Amino acid sequence: MTFSRSSSITFFILALFAVLINPAISSRASSFTKPPLSSIASYCESWRLAAETNNAGTWKVVPSQCENYVKNYISEGQFDKDYDLVASYAIAYAKTVKLGRDGKDAWVFDIDETLLSNIEYYKAHGYGSQPYDNTLFNEWVVKGTAPGFDASLRLYKALKKLGFTIILLTGRDESQRSITEKNLRDAGYFGWNRLLLRGKNDQGKAATLYKSEQRSKVVKEGYTIHGNTGDQWSDLQGFAVAARSFKVPNPMYYIP
Amino acid sequence: MTFSRSSSITFFILALFAVLINPAISSRASSFTKPPLSSIASYCESWRLAAETNNAGTWKVVPSQCENYVKNYISEGQFDKDYDLVASYAIAYAKTVKLGRDGKDAWVFDIDETLLSNIEYYKAHGYGSQPYDNTLFNEWVVKGTAPGFDASLRLYKALKKLGFTIILLTGRDESQRSITEKNLRDAGYFGWNRLLLRGKNDQGKAATLYKSEQRSKVVKEGYTIHGNTGDQWSDLQGFAVAARSFKVPNPMYYIP
Repeated sequence: MTFSRSSSITFFILALFAVLINPAISSRASSFTKPPLSSIASYCESWRLAAETNNAGTWKVVPSQCENYVKNYISEGQFDKDYDLVASYAIAYAKTVKLGRDGKDAWVFDIDETLLSNIEYYKAHGYGSQPYDNTLFNEWVVKGTAPGFDASLRLYKALKKLGFTIILLTGRDESQRSITEKNLRDAGYFGWNRLLLRGKNDQGKAATLYKSEQRSKVVKEGYTIHGNTGDQWSDLQGFAVAARSFKVPNPMYYIP
Repeated sequence: MTFSRSSSITFFILALFAVLINPAISSRASSFTKPPLSSIASYCESWRLAAETNNAGTWKVVPSQCENYVKNYISEGQFDKDYDLVASYAIAYAKTVKLGRDGKDAWVFDIDETLLSNIEYYKAHGYGSQPYDNTLFNEWVVKGTAPGFDASLRLYKALKKLGFTIILLTGRDESQRSITEKNLRDAGYFGWNRLLLRGKNDQGKAATLYKSEQRSKVVKEGYTIHGNTGDQWSDLQGFAVAARSFKVPNPMYYIP
């Protein structure tokens, strides 16, 4: 194979340019390892890990420099893979639980960002980089069009098949009961034992306390809460906690 | 600038080769976003997040396909950045604590992979992909040469300066007291209130129970445990838990 001088120079420049601008080509260089990250991406990696492990404490918005990072994390599939692996660990654990015949073996699910995805809403609001707007968010909720996550549907169906009693426990208001039930059914969920929403006496309560109180009532009825799935630590901590808790990823918002 | 035909071809091939084998060059292509990951790296990302959030439950070894991923995560600096951000969150929180004058404002630290790094040991043992060997690990411990982490030294010194009483609580055996104290001092730590190690009555106890019991005694002495820092969930959970817990990264091993 021979090159003329000018065509070889042109080809060299074009090839180098293609490699430099195309991450799909350049990432081939390290197919088994992670390529080094920019300092912003690297900071946002650390931030997301700190948020997911509850090290960041209460945070109001995604750091502005991480909006694009969160967008890519969600839209390019790593978010789904992360959720999917949590679902697999939850199913593997659920299969080890020996269920009684009294229907008292319970599994608790949160709803928003656990069973139903509001990503479409957050996509239009900076992926969590804009402050939470209660009015706008509730306008979205009452549309009742939130889809399920593939991973949560897989987990939910597996637990139903194994015979767990499903308890839904959400920070949504009692006034949103019908639309929430319809949305859940449309998204593919079915056969839950009960849907617990915030009533009059729960207004203004911190999520951890409200959810702990609700779980506590369930336990007092004789249920064993084997598992709990939520995207917030306030879904999982407090008292009457489950034997195993599964924190599903949510890099968009934090509820104390 | 002109090229001879042969030198231009040679240069083109060398340049292309350099770009393809060098992730530092190829990653320039996407300085603000994360380049796409290989499916192995993507799985290992999900696995590490699941491990750090305690979703993976008890695990014995790093998945074999993730050995290289964990090696790179640690050796290429993301691990240090992740720990550093946790330290920053811990310091920010510590500054909000109003300390009394009675010296009863406590902060608990675990030792291994929290204050002292055994990464040199794990580097020689597959970064956690080989089963834990108690004999070999203890041979390493009694050398007493484990360094501190930059982030843990920064956090420790900041807490000392703020006036916290430091309590060290480790799963190491009482027989390793002297070498542990010497190692800690050599690594730059100083002025702790006490070092709690596993005594005769603690043998065989699960880490969560042993550590909860020890914290409980501290609380009964009148201390308030404002913060707790550990690389294991068993350092942080159970009873007599701290007001805020900080889970520092450790993708190499899990202690139930």
